[in-house]
Amino acid sequence: MPYADLQKHLTNLEEKNLLVRIRRPINKDTELHPLFRWQFRGGLPESARKAFYFENVVDSGGRHYTIPVVIGALGASPAIYEIAMGCPIDEIPQRWQHALHHPIEPVIVDDGPVHEIVLTGAALDEERGGLLQLPIPISTPGFDNAPYTTCSHFFTKDPETGIRNQGNYRGQLKGQRVIGLQAPAWQDVAKHWEKCRIQGKPLPAALVIGAPPIVSHCTVLKAPFGVDELGIASALAGEPIRLVRCKTVELEVPMDAEIVVEGFVRTDFLEPEGPFGESHGYIHPRTLSPVMEVTAITMKRRPVYATFMSQMTPNESSSSRRTGFEAYYLNHLRQDLGIKSVVKVSMHEKLTNLRKLIIVQMKKPAESEVWRALHGVANFQPGVGKFIIAVDEDIDPRNMDAVWWAMCYRSKPHKDVLILPGRVKGHSPPFKHEDRLAAEDSAMLINAILKEPFPPISLPKREYMERAKQIWEELEFPALNPEPPWFGYSLGDWDEEWEEEAEMAVTNRYLETGEKLAKRRVKT
Amino acid sequence: MPYADLQKHLTNLEEKNLLVRIRRPINKDTELHPLFRWQFRGGLPESARKAFYFENVVDSGGRHYTIPVVIGALGASPAIYEIAMGCPIDEIPQRWQHALHHPIEPVIVDDGPVHEIVLTGAALDEERGGLLQLPIPISTPGFDNAPYTTCSHFFTKDPETGIRNQGNYRGQLKGQRVIGLQAPAWQDVAKHWEKCRIQGKPLPAALVIGAPPIVSHCTVLKAPFGVDELGIASALAGEPIRLVRCKTVELEVPMDAEIVVEGFVRTDFLEPEGPFGESHGYIHPRTLSPVMEVTAITMKRRPVYATFMSQMTPNESSSSRRTGFEAYYLNHLRQDLGIKSVVKVSMHEKLTNLRKLIIVQMKKPAESEVWRALHGVANFQPGVGKFIIAVDEDIDPRNMDAVWWAMCYRSKPHKDVLILPGRVKGHSPPFKHEDRLAAEDSAMLINAILKEPFPPISLPKREYMERAKQIWEELEFPALNPEPPWFGYSLGDWDEEWEEEAEMAVTNRYLETGEKLAKRRVKT
Repeated sequence: MPYADLQKHLTNLEEKNLLVRIRRPINKDTELHPLFRWQFRGGLPESARKAFYFENVVDSGGRHYTIPVVIGALGASPAIYEIAMGCPIDEIPQRWQHALHHPIEPVIVDDGPVHEIVLTGAALDEERGGLLQLPIPISTPGFDNAPYTTCSHFFTKDPETGIRNQGNYRGQLKGQRVIGLQAPAWQDVAKHWEKCRIQGKPLPAALVIGAPPIVSHCTVLKAPFGVDELGIASALAGEPIRLVRCKTVELEVPMDAEIVVEGFVRTDFLEPEGPFGESHGYIHPRTLSPVMEVTAITMKRRPVYATFMSQMTPNESSSSRRTGFEAYYLNHLRQDLGIKSVVKVSMHEKLTNLRKLIIVQMKKPAESEVWRALHGVANFQPGVGKFIIAVDEDIDPRNMDAVWWAMCYRSKPHKDVLILPGRVKGHSPPFKHEDRLAAEDSAMLINAILKEPFPPISLPKREYMERAKQIWEELEFPALNPEPPWFGYSLGDWDEEWEEEAEMAVTNRYLETGEKLAKRRVKT
Repeated sequence: MPYADLQKHLTNLEEKNLLVRIRRPINKDTELHPLFRWQFRGGLPESARKAFYFENVVDSGGRHYTIPVVIGALGASPAIYEIAMGCPIDEIPQRWQHALHHPIEPVIVDDGPVHEIVLTGAALDEERGGLLQLPIPISTPGFDNAPYTTCSHFFTKDPETGIRNQGNYRGQLKGQRVIGLQAPAWQDVAKHWEKCRIQGKPLPAALVIGAPPIVSHCTVLKAPFGVDELGIASALAGEPIRLVRCKTVELEVPMDAEIVVEGFVRTDFLEPEGPFGESHGYIHPRTLSPVMEVTAITMKRRPVYATFMSQMTPNESSSSRRTGFEAYYLNHLRQDLGIKSVVKVSMHEKLTNLRKLIIVQMKKPAESEVWRALHGVANFQPGVGKFIIAVDEDIDPRNMDAVWWAMCYRSKPHKDVLILPGRVKGHSPPFKHEDRLAAEDSAMLINAILKEPFPPISLPKREYMERAKQIWEELEFPALNPEPPWFGYSLGDWDEEWEEEAEMAVTNRYLETGEKLAKRRVKT
C-alpha cells in the first residue's frame, strides 16, 4: 500500500472513528486550541482522544477561511500515532533504527498536487493574501503574541554538502510575507543558517504544512546531523517519498504536501520572537531569532491546514517522542554501558515533560549495577534526568503509584539516595538572566530496588484473580484493564509451612491449622 | 430520620444503584474477595465502585450458606461512605470533633432483632455449627491461612472503669468455637486484655458483625482511650444507639446488629495468628495473639454477613481513614504549630497506604514556615511520613503528576531536600528480627515551593478554556472533569508589554506586533 498523504490519512482516521468533524464556526484565535486542549486536561482517558477537523474556521477579525484546520491528526493518541506510522508504537524504535541504516533515496517527480496553486510576487501582496490566507491558529490565547505555525516542517539544505534536512519548528506570523523562525542553536537548521551567515547569504527554506504523516513523524523524531529525514521516511514507507522542486528556492518538498511556504531566512539580523507556551509547562519568553521572507506559497486546490497541540505535556507529540527517547536511553544503558539488568527506561510524560523524571526498571541487579544505571541516565545528556529512580521488575514504571510504593517501602533515603550537584537546569524556567551552562541545579538518584527478601504482595494469588476475572466477565460487568500489581506473589520471605496452610485454607481444611496452632500456645 | 441498620442501609444503596446483587454461586474461600478486588485493581474509576451482595454463597467444602454476604457496603467508594455516615466526606472531621465533645449516651433496651436467634451451649457444638455456619470469606486466597472476620467489631469494657470500647480487629477462624484475635499492643482492647491478665481472669468480649453503619464507622475511626465510640456514634446519629444486653457476657451490643459472637478472650496464653494480608501491600507474618472462646452466637432471623476488603490500598477503608488522618495532621500544623500558611495535608493512598507519602499544600509560605511544616509532619507520629513534600497552592496535592511537576521545576535537590535519619520503619516490611523502635529508616523532606517569579503556565487563559468548555458541551462531547492546571495563569514573570501583545493577538492585531518587533532587529 502506498504511503498516505494527509487527506488520505484523515479518511483512514475517520473510518476508525478517530476523527471528529466540527461544523459550527470556530474562532482559530480563541476557541480552536482550547477546545482541543480539553481532551488533555478534562480527565478523559488517552484512548478517547480524537483528531478534530474544523470545517468552518473564522478569526477575531471576522474573516472566514476556506481552508479547514485539522489538529491532533498525527498524535492525539497512540492509536492515531500508530495509524500515521503504519506500525505498533512499541516497534517504532527498532523500525527507526533499521531505517536509519537502510535509507531509501526519495525521488523527484515533475509535478504534484502541492503545485495546483502557486502564488508568487504580487499575488502574495494582495489584500489579506500571502500568509494571511492560511488559518494559522493561536495556541495559547491570552499569552501567545501571534498565531504560530506549529506543525511546520522547515526544509533546508546544508549549503556546503547539499544534504537535505527537515526539522519541525514553530513560526511566528509577523507579516503577510514574514514569519519568525524559532530554531535553537543546537538544531540542524541552525547549523545551515550559520554556514549561510558566514557566506553572507540568506538560507533558502521551505515551510511544509501538512506533509504525508510518515514524513511529519520523521521530521519530529529527528535524524542525526547530516542524515536526510526523507530517506528514513522513505525506508519506513517502504517506497521513495515523491518530491517536487520548489518554485522559488532550490529545494524539494513532498509532491502531495498540503501547503508549502517558500522563502529565504535572513542571516544578517535577528529579531525578537515569542513568548510562546512550552512543553515544560510554562510560557517561554522572547528570544532573538531569524526571520523568513516569503517568496512563494504553493498548495493543493483544496488543502487542509494541519496544526500540532504542543505546550504543556501531555501534548500531541509527547507520547510519540517518548517512544524514541526511551529507546535511546535503554540503548545507552544496555549497549554503551553494558548493564544487562536494565529492562526498561520510562520517561514520565504528564506535566513533567519526559526529561525530568526517569524510571529505570531492572531485573535482579547487583547494587553496583543500580548505581551505574542511575549515573548513566544522569550523565547521558545535559538537562535530562532530575529525579532518576531504579525499581524492580515487578514495579510498573508507568504507574507512579507503584513507583512511590517502591520508594516508600524498598528504599531508605539516608542509604539509597544520592544528590548530584553541578548540573544545568535544562529545558526549564526561570529564564531571567539565563545561563544555559550554569551548574545551578542538581539531580537525585534513588535506589528503590528490593534489598532483602520481603513477604508476598497482599493480593489473592494469580489463579484466584484470573478465575474472578472470568466470573466478572460472565456477569457482564464493565471491562477491566488490570493495573499491576493485580495479584499476589512472593518476594522471598515465605515458607513451606505458610504455603501449605494457605493451600489448606482454600480447600476447606483450615480447622486443622487451628488445631495445629493451638498446640503452640505460649503461657503469658 | 432514625439511624439505619445494615439492611436498611443496603436498601438505600440499592436505590442509588450503589449495590450489585450477585445471584450465581460464589465460593467465599476462593472467589468472593478476588471478584470484589477487581473493582480496585481493574483500572476502573473510584466513582464506579459498588457494594457487592452475594445471595448464593458456597465454600470449598461444598457447603451452601443460608446467610448472604455483603462486601464494600461501608466504604467501597466515597459515595457509599457518605451514605453510611449521613454527611459529605469533607464534613466528617468537624462532625467527628463535635461529636467527640458532645457525646450522647446510648440506651439499653430489653430486646432487639439481634436476639431473634440465640445459640448457646450444645447448639454451638452441633455438626458444622458454631462459627462454621457463618460465611466468613478468605480475604487473600493463596496466602491467608484461614477465613478471617474483617468487619468484626470487638466490644469490650475496661475491667476497672467499666467504660465500653469498640475496635475493629480481624478474627482468625480457628475452630467451631475458637477465634484468634489480632489486636496490636497499642490498641485499647489490648489494654483491657492486659488488665484482665493481671487480675488473672479472661476478658469478656462480643464480636459484632454487621452493626448499623454509623456504629461501624465510629469503630473504625477510633476514639481516644477511655471514650466510648458508641457515645460518638449516637451523637453523629443524633439519637442514642439502642443496645441490648448480651446473653452470656456482661456487655451491650447494638440491638439491630446482624450477628454477635459472644465469648471470653483467654489471657493465660497466646497463640500464633496469621499470616494475613496488610495495608502496606505485603503479607504480614504470624504473630502471637490472644484467642477468644465462644459462649454464644446471636443473630437476626435473616442476617446479612458483612465483610471488609482490607489489605493493599486502596481498600474499602483507606479513603475514609484518609479523611480523618488528614484533618488530624492539618490541625497539628495549623493549630498546635500555628503555621497558618498550610492549606491542606494530603496523604497519598494508592498502594502507599496513607502513612508514607504526605503532601503539604501551602499558600505563599516563608521559607522557614515550609521547613517547620515539613518537620512538623515528620515528627508528629512515629512511622508516619517518609516522603514529605511542600507544594504551592496552585498544585493539586491529589494529583501526583502535578506534585512531580512541582518537584521537577520548583525544587533543586541539593538545596531543597533534607534527609532525616534516626526514624523507625513503621507499618512496613521487613519483619524478620523486627524491632519496632530501631532507628533504621529515614525520611525525606522536599521543598517544592516556588522560590522566584516564574512565567505563566503554558495553557490558554481561563476565559478561553471556559468558553471552549461551553462549546464542548454544546457539541455534546463526553463529560469533562477538569484536571488542574487546566488554564494558564501568571506566576510573576510576565510584563505589561507581553500582556498587551497577547491581547492584540486575540483581537486580530498581531501584525502590529510583527511590525513593532521588526524595529528591534539586531545585526548578526
